[in-house]
Amino acid sequence: MGGDLISEKTSYLIPGFHTVRESLIQGRVTILEVWIAEGKKSARTGEILKMAGKRGIPVSFKKIAELSHLMPGMTHQGVVALAEKFTYSDFNKVTDISMQDHDRALLIAADHITDEGNLGAMIRTAAFFSAHGLILPKDRSAKVTANVLKRSSGACAYLPITRVVNLGRALDLLEKKGFWIVGASGESSESVYQCDWNRDLVLILGNEQKGISRTVKKRCHQVVGIPSSGHMESLNVSVAAGVILSEIFRQREAFKTPD
Amino acid sequence: MGGDLISEKTSYLIPGFHTVRESLIQGRVTILEVWIAEGKKSARTGEILKMAGKRGIPVSFKKIAELSHLMPGMTHQGVVALAEKFTYSDFNKVTDISMQDHDRALLIAADHITDEGNLGAMIRTAAFFSAHGLILPKDRSAKVTANVLKRSSGACAYLPITRVVNLGRALDLLEKKGFWIVGASGESSESVYQCDWNRDLVLILGNEQKGISRTVKKRCHQVVGIPSSGHMESLNVSVAAGVILSEIFRQREAFKTPD
Repeated sequence: MGGDLISEKTSYLIPGFHTVRESLIQGRVTILEVWIAEGKKSARTGEILKMAGKRGIPVSFKKIAELSHLMPGMTHQGVVALAEKFTYSDFNKVTDISMQDHDRALLIAADHITDEGNLGAMIRTAAFFSAHGLILPKDRSAKVTANVLKRSSGACAYLPITRVVNLGRALDLLEKKGFWIVGASGESSESVYQCDWNRDLVLILGNEQKGISRTVKKRCHQVVGIPSSGHMESLNVSVAAGVILSEIFRQREAFKTPD
Repeated sequence: MGGDLISEKTSYLIPGFHTVRESLIQGRVTILEVWIAEGKKSARTGEILKMAGKRGIPVSFKKIAELSHLMPGMTHQGVVALAEKFTYSDFNKVTDISMQDHDRALLIAADHITDEGNLGAMIRTAAFFSAHGLILPKDRSAKVTANVLKRSSGACAYLPITRVVNLGRALDLLEKKGFWIVGASGESSESVYQCDWNRDLVLILGNEQKGISRTVKKRCHQVVGIPSSGHMESLNVSVAAGVILSEIFRQREAFKTPD
């Protein structure tokens, strides 16, 4: 199926000082315009004005109520950017860049996560813990829509997201490159706290209802679970992502040679 | 303010197989009726039928369209229960029960979390990690609605939830009882991984936008943050809850005397 079958808006709004600033620095998204709330004068808006000026990006001043109306329920801090449509990153580029962080490459693969809120929260969490990239299957998966961008709180500006036709084949390629493939499943008795996370990793999170699919599970070197001390069998998938990424971060920090 | 000022429905609907099943098992909510979609025959509906039968709860079959009409926008999987209104637990009872788990009492206080999705996910996470209870302020906070129950995946059946008029005063009482009060804030440089979690705890999570309020923060013995290795400043509040509760669980397990 061609990419033209995937319907997406041609532009979207990026809210908030930090997200706009990072989008301008990173250059992963093309900023078409910057909007600043009327009467807002601070070191921060000054910085945005200067950056936009340097890049030849037009800036206009809008009523703060208008900005809030355009982005209901979002904290924009009086700074909004209009960006060209979200661009997925190249799979090989993402993996190559991740491997520059020797033994600490960290890719996340979403095995058919369908809820946009979950995908957005997971992108935010992955960016918070400095994952190098997110791999999404092209079909039967939530896509990076305006709603996902919003739910990610602008984290799409930091986290390279790549799409693959066949997740199983993508994992085969990553295995050849030396990645350790770890699936997360509530059914596993192997605890995330016991796992050795100090290597090049692909962490796979499964569908909200079905978990990790059979074809993906058989490609995992290891399947780990978050031990529940209570009665609940599972966590929301974006919360589970947060718990595991936090443990990876904690272990990697602990293994760092002190200065 | 009297409790009668808080407007709530006298009964509510519990959607979905898991949530209905757990509500039947736990018995914290009183199920008045169970509705199953016409023509829906599966091992799951069979189980629900059997459980309802044992408890003398009437079951009726309804058109799936009718169920969807009753619960717009919710995934009910053809299984719905009509329950007596959700009952909040007594504050003193919750704290007393938690303190029976010596040095491991774990209460969570939500300092004005307003999003129902976040509250539901947090309840699910708290139940997963065996928190003893959740404290909500009566005003300016999301309440336990049908949507929250659904988003909690039935965890409301396990986690005692109590409401207080004044969160600050509730914390004063808990301090007197010997609880260590810890606030979570992205601004704190004190890492959640360095904190000693082996004591009777109240963990406070703040509002989605404003974080922990000033009056609550001044009552904290300690304010801790989740260190970000990336560019994002903060996590979704329910993900942050998951990360911290996971670290509490990990540390407490590590400190357990081996058998």
